[in-house]
Amino acid sequence: MEEMFAERIINVPRSFIREILKVSLDPAIISFAGGLPNRDYFPVEEIQAATQGVFCDNGRDILQYSNSEGLLALREYIAARYLAKKGLVVSPEDILITNGSQQGLDLLGKVLINTGDAVVIEEPGYLGAIQSLSIFRPTFLPVPLSDEGMEVDSLREVSAGKGVKFLYAVPNFQNPSGITYSNSNRLQVAEVAADEGFLLVEDDPYGELRFSGADQQSFYSLLPKQTILLGSFSKIVAPGFRLGWIVASGKIREKLLVAKQAADLHTSGFAQHILNRYLQDNDIDRHIARIITAYGGQCQAMVDSIARHLPGDISWTRPEGGMFLWGRLPGEMSSMKLFDLAVQEKVVFVPGDPFYTTTTEVPTLRLNFSCADGETIERGVRRLARALAKM
Amino acid sequence: MEEMFAERIINVPRSFIREILKVSLDPAIISFAGGLPNRDYFPVEEIQAATQGVFCDNGRDILQYSNSEGLLALREYIAARYLAKKGLVVSPEDILITNGSQQGLDLLGKVLINTGDAVVIEEPGYLGAIQSLSIFRPTFLPVPLSDEGMEVDSLREVSAGKGVKFLYAVPNFQNPSGITYSNSNRLQVAEVAADEGFLLVEDDPYGELRFSGADQQSFYSLLPKQTILLGSFSKIVAPGFRLGWIVASGKIREKLLVAKQAADLHTSGFAQHILNRYLQDNDIDRHIARIITAYGGQCQAMVDSIARHLPGDISWTRPEGGMFLWGRLPGEMSSMKLFDLAVQEKVVFVPGDPFYTTTTEVPTLRLNFSCADGETIERGVRRLARALAKM
Repeated sequence: MEEMFAERIINVPRSFIREILKVSLDPAIISFAGGLPNRDYFPVEEIQAATQGVFCDNGRDILQYSNSEGLLALREYIAARYLAKKGLVVSPEDILITNGSQQGLDLLGKVLINTGDAVVIEEPGYLGAIQSLSIFRPTFLPVPLSDEGMEVDSLREVSAGKGVKFLYAVPNFQNPSGITYSNSNRLQVAEVAADEGFLLVEDDPYGELRFSGADQQSFYSLLPKQTILLGSFSKIVAPGFRLGWIVASGKIREKLLVAKQAADLHTSGFAQHILNRYLQDNDIDRHIARIITAYGGQCQAMVDSIARHLPGDISWTRPEGGMFLWGRLPGEMSSMKLFDLAVQEKVVFVPGDPFYTTTTEVPTLRLNFSCADGETIERGVRRLARALAKM
Repeated sequence: MEEMFAERIINVPRSFIREILKVSLDPAIISFAGGLPNRDYFPVEEIQAATQGVFCDNGRDILQYSNSEGLLALREYIAARYLAKKGLVVSPEDILITNGSQQGLDLLGKVLINTGDAVVIEEPGYLGAIQSLSIFRPTFLPVPLSDEGMEVDSLREVSAGKGVKFLYAVPNFQNPSGITYSNSNRLQVAEVAADEGFLLVEDDPYGELRFSGADQQSFYSLLPKQTILLGSFSKIVAPGFRLGWIVASGKIREKLLVAKQAADLHTSGFAQHILNRYLQDNDIDRHIARIITAYGGQCQAMVDSIARHLPGDISWTRPEGGMFLWGRLPGEMSSMKLFDLAVQEKVVFVPGDPFYTTTTEVPTLRLNFSCADGETIERGVRRLARALAKM
């Protein structure tokens, strides 16, 4: 039976996180495993009003087929926001609306990766990217992360002369580690990209969710001609729309558009019109400020609970934004084993394994803090302490 | 620069139809080129009411991430409709919600096609399928169509011993030809598939839009274990949702789900909840009956106008449903040349070329009748007559 399938799909696993989410359907379980934005902060009433608005103004248009590039007004909004928030000059022409930024990864893989092509990824890296790009059978070159960003000596070494197609990075509040690349690290990474002539794919779903520290420079400002940006409305408005985007110019943009047409003709015009109306009619910065206050408080609660209840020999990252904390158990302890014990104590997290392409039985783990209040976080961390005590 | 790109994308053209649609933005042009459902028959008020309903009942849920398989209630609806309308027993478990049926093609290509694998397609064939599958670099084996369906002798000959992965067909009111496979033709095609052991991919976006004649049997009823069904809400409700589905079981379903997760995690839950509510609250059969009456009348108007104004040596198909008529110019006349003359006369259609994988400068053309009223059709056909007179 396996012989029926294309080689590209045979070894791609189901999403580990999606399997874990099934465990956490048990309401008695406290889950730090998810990667979901907090539903309490979805602007439901405002989106409902926006929906009414577009039905009144152009009900038939939003239900018809539309163009593959995406709604121009929405692309103009994204371009204006890049300029206002980050000083980046991006043309609406170079923005392609996608089904979440996840689809941007699929399109990039399709357009750029031949079997065996070298792709640099972070270790640990975003598993949705690992899964998505795996389909196109690259050779992954993992580069370890430190608290400052990518380990540049290692990057230089593994990428030298390999004809790397691109480097994939989540430089702000990285998933899973929560770390942020410093400006000097970004400069060094961009230097390697310039020297070796590979593209930088900068995925930034969490960048606007900063609760401390200062914004760092986008790769796009350092190396605009070699940087592709991925963005998403999932974490700042709502993921149910499945709306994200990809910024690329010239021939790459052209090929991405062909791949998009082939993939699904275009992203839902219905969703695009409604989101665009919501963005026009509301102060998104005020909305984002509310999310930041909430997540910042929850992150602090988790840091505090960890300090109170967990052994000091576990090291943790200190995120300045985003949704995740990353821990490292001492020595050779396996977080997968801890996971089994944690399920018994009715708390779950994501063991580090799926975030690596070359090793298993790692001692790391990811905790999500965006979906639980301080009191739940405290109870969950206590349960985790009990599981650890049994190790 | 080309060396940067993956081999799979280099020769995939932009969608020809999407390029043509740009010509037809000129309001003076009468377009028979589109493939759009008629916006006058979108159930806008009912969808607006359904939207209000879901916002009231579960506003937060519809905005959150959801599962990759798609909304269970919607999959149950689709399964129940297969049973009620066609007597097909399909499990909701085996239905995967996709971004239009176009995404089903992308997922199938990903999961089944290795470079060079043989795939049988209709000639002329749906160009969205040609584009989508081309990405995975199959060897297309085109089989000509007759008024009865696929030319079975040709199918047997081209497929024998080739290890064909699948045959792609639109057996009802085919795009672009408008023809429908007869029951006896379907039986013969299924026999070849059984003998050669290849899958039948049955794409049926127009099947419910029958205005004359009797429904024919689905391949799924003839050869259930070897048939994959693609379906879509685009032609019976509205395309702006980008909602379609794929029916497959066992290992294939499993692999398609992995490919779907990798492609975009899941299809918009927002759109799925709203469409599902619309389907629960309304009589879709009554709605479809209105579309059928309209399209049936417009098809007849086009047939009549053609009989009145165009030379008798052009042969035309006589569709029993769907949205397209297909014409063949006499001798070696090129429809691409006719297209240039037609643009001067302010009427456009789709020349046959993009529907073929092996030839160009073909004498065939596609006319769409779903988007123009009888009077416009009459004027457009007259303009076409003037263009023909200049050939």
